[in-house]
Amino acid sequence: MPDAGHEFALIDRLRSRARAHTWLPLGIGDDTAALRLASNRDSLVTVDMLMEGTDFTFPPATAALAGRKSLAVNLSDVAAMAGRPRAAFVAVALPRERGSAFAVEFLDGVIQLADEFDVAIAGGDTNIWDGPLVASVTVLGEATGRGPVTRGGARPGDWIFVTGRLGGSLAGHHLTFTPRVLEAQKLHQAVELHAMIDLSDGLASDLRHILDASGVGALLVADAIPITDDARASNDNRTPLEHALGDGEDFELLFTVSPEDGQRLLDSPPVACPLTQIGEIRSEPGCELVQSDGQRQPLPALGWEHRFASPQSSGSG
Amino acid sequence: MPDAGHEFALIDRLRSRARAHTWLPLGIGDDTAALRLASNRDSLVTVDMLMEGTDFTFPPATAALAGRKSLAVNLSDVAAMAGRPRAAFVAVALPRERGSAFAVEFLDGVIQLADEFDVAIAGGDTNIWDGPLVASVTVLGEATGRGPVTRGGARPGDWIFVTGRLGGSLAGHHLTFTPRVLEAQKLHQAVELHAMIDLSDGLASDLRHILDASGVGALLVADAIPITDDARASNDNRTPLEHALGDGEDFELLFTVSPEDGQRLLDSPPVACPLTQIGEIRSEPGCELVQSDGQRQPLPALGWEHRFASPQSSGSG
Repeated sequence: MPDAGHEFALIDRLRSRARAHTWLPLGIGDDTAALRLASNRDSLVTVDMLMEGTDFTFPPATAALAGRKSLAVNLSDVAAMAGRPRAAFVAVALPRERGSAFAVEFLDGVIQLADEFDVAIAGGDTNIWDGPLVASVTVLGEATGRGPVTRGGARPGDWIFVTGRLGGSLAGHHLTFTPRVLEAQKLHQAVELHAMIDLSDGLASDLRHILDASGVGALLVADAIPITDDARASNDNRTPLEHALGDGEDFELLFTVSPEDGQRLLDSPPVACPLTQIGEIRSEPGCELVQSDGQRQPLPALGWEHRFASPQSSGSG
Repeated sequence: MPDAGHEFALIDRLRSRARAHTWLPLGIGDDTAALRLASNRDSLVTVDMLMEGTDFTFPPATAALAGRKSLAVNLSDVAAMAGRPRAAFVAVALPRERGSAFAVEFLDGVIQLADEFDVAIAGGDTNIWDGPLVASVTVLGEATGRGPVTRGGARPGDWIFVTGRLGGSLAGHHLTFTPRVLEAQKLHQAVELHAMIDLSDGLASDLRHILDASGVGALLVADAIPITDDARASNDNRTPLEHALGDGEDFELLFTVSPEDGQRLLDSPPVACPLTQIGEIRSEPGCELVQSDGQRQPLPALGWEHRFASPQSSGSG
């Protein structure tokens, strides 16, 4: 295909499909975009780079699902701060050999999810090359009036909650999950969230991020951890619990609240998805897992193994 | 090298080298960064993805120069709006085979240029893979009090100016250029900039972006166009002028001002770099090039040919 023509056609596609948003006075078509976010609140910014062979393979992924996931992982990061995503910037290197239909399908996958969450496609850089698909999406959002929820606010005595169910994401969930943006906002309105993270590296690993940032420890109740059917159906040498602790790419929310707020969440959950208390924060460092027989063991060092090949990614911000 | 350990080590390097900035309440280390930019001004956002083999090859590029360029092209986009760059987000896929020294050198190249321009490294996503180097940097900035300068404000009668000299960038300038951030701000303070763009695709192509966005035409004076020594020394079948019009990656500023402001710039230039009037805006559409013998010809359709291989990139915002 004629390169330049096609690449301009791709950016034009992003541009023409982009909806008007009050917070985007200047979208695609100049040297930078101009954004007008809430002036009295912090802007939240996150970027993730996803690569063919690491974050998806074709099949089972389709171009549209790859596009969708490239945005979804960033929306999940904004959700983890209980923020409102507002604008996305899509940089992509599209494989020449897969042709223009693939490219269009990829972009449409991004655009469709952006529309679902009322996120403006505010900029992009579309490239065609001879390598595999690489997509780097940046998302800007706003903190709510209650401010961003960080990883560092967990307090001894807090109850630890998780949304949804965990494990087995590679069976398909990692391509089709709905980022918990709305759930995070509802939770943030209903109670005071002390610390929050989205589960990308896996519960065992991501909980440690909260504990390290907060300078606390935790006790997890093995039987309480909600496990997906995919994790239970997995036919390998790992237990369903190990899948739930280590698979990662669940893109569920892990958060801590005071016991009073925790009880409130259990009594009248503000969200439709499962909401499960899986343990509590304590002042002693480290993290122990309590088995059904009462035995305690250190939480195994699982996690980061959600990539197809060897563990490969470390992201932040 | 041990992947996960090394990738966390890389993000830690970005984190530990990151300086404190008042506009960055939350930097690397959480799900998103939190930025506090000027509340009464638009935020400017731009992203560019650079790829090994397209935007640089090793050699002549070094890892440090590739890192530097990955940030510099985005700073140049913010300069084109006469904005102030504030924060950078660095997503990168680092080639496993090049090892950790390459990775560290790349990041240091980014960090050093960020420090020069007082830009916070506010987030990142560091990956190691078996492909070539891919770097996608997002830069956030602030518009100045006079607002962002777009491509769309050129008016008939405006004088067209360019900073520096053009052409021959692939001889080295595209790896070592200093983005015209400070020059753009000084120009914006001194006069009313009507329209501006940075020269990435080449003068012939980028001028058309201004003309299209502004709904105007232009007359360029061939003899007035400042040409680099590299373009003059080029030993191929193109004239120095053709290089200046079409090579691209000059990363100079192209802008228009009223004749009164133009005269002011010539009389007392607010910047140290060359500042040259190369033509003027007119209401008739199209762009003509006036040769030294007075002959006029349509501006040839050069440009986009600044990439090493076939024309490959189309970016915006």
